Amino acid sequence: MPRFMDVHEGFGGVTQSEFEVAATAEDAIQAEEGVRFEHSWLDPESGKLFCLSTGPSKEAVLRIHARAGHPTAEIYEVPIEVS
Amino acid sequence: MPRFMDVHEGFGGVTQSEFEVAATAEDAIQAEEGVRFEHSWLDPESGKLFCLSTGPSKEAVLRIHARAGHPTAEIYEVPIEVS
Repeated sequence: MPRFMDVHEGFGGVTQSEFEVAATAEDAIQAEEGVRFEHSWLDPESGKLFCLSTGPSKEAVLRIHARAGHPTAEIYEVPIEVS
Repeated sequence: MPRFMDVHEGFGGVTQSEFEVAATAEDAIQAEEGVRFEHSWLDPESGKLFCLSTGPSKEAVLRIHARAGHPTAEIYEVPIEVS
């Protein structure tokens, strides 16, 4: 299953607990599109949010975000990684 | 130790093995600044690269990238995360 990184703006000032609550909106419906959000990182100063996921396509990931109330258009397929 | 996500452009067409070689430049010197690159994800189609690291400051991370020949100015401290 391909892996994706998507990027959001506008999460400035969001706290850890607020973000955990927000993320449950995606968690609740992700399986309907075969998407799995693996990890997300948020900078509350700039409001930038990065979400790592797997799923059948970019469009499937973006549909889950949009339905969860967190739409974005910025997404990358990331088949190459090092750790 | 704070965690950071930095973003690069211009890695279009880079292969897995080329990227592994490129990343050794950072690995070789990261300890000099107390930086540790944890994971990187690359989209060879757009050339976008995301690097997750820990370190004492944004500036320390950016100095390692610059000295390794991969300068960028785009970096975010990401104290909030969910998995």
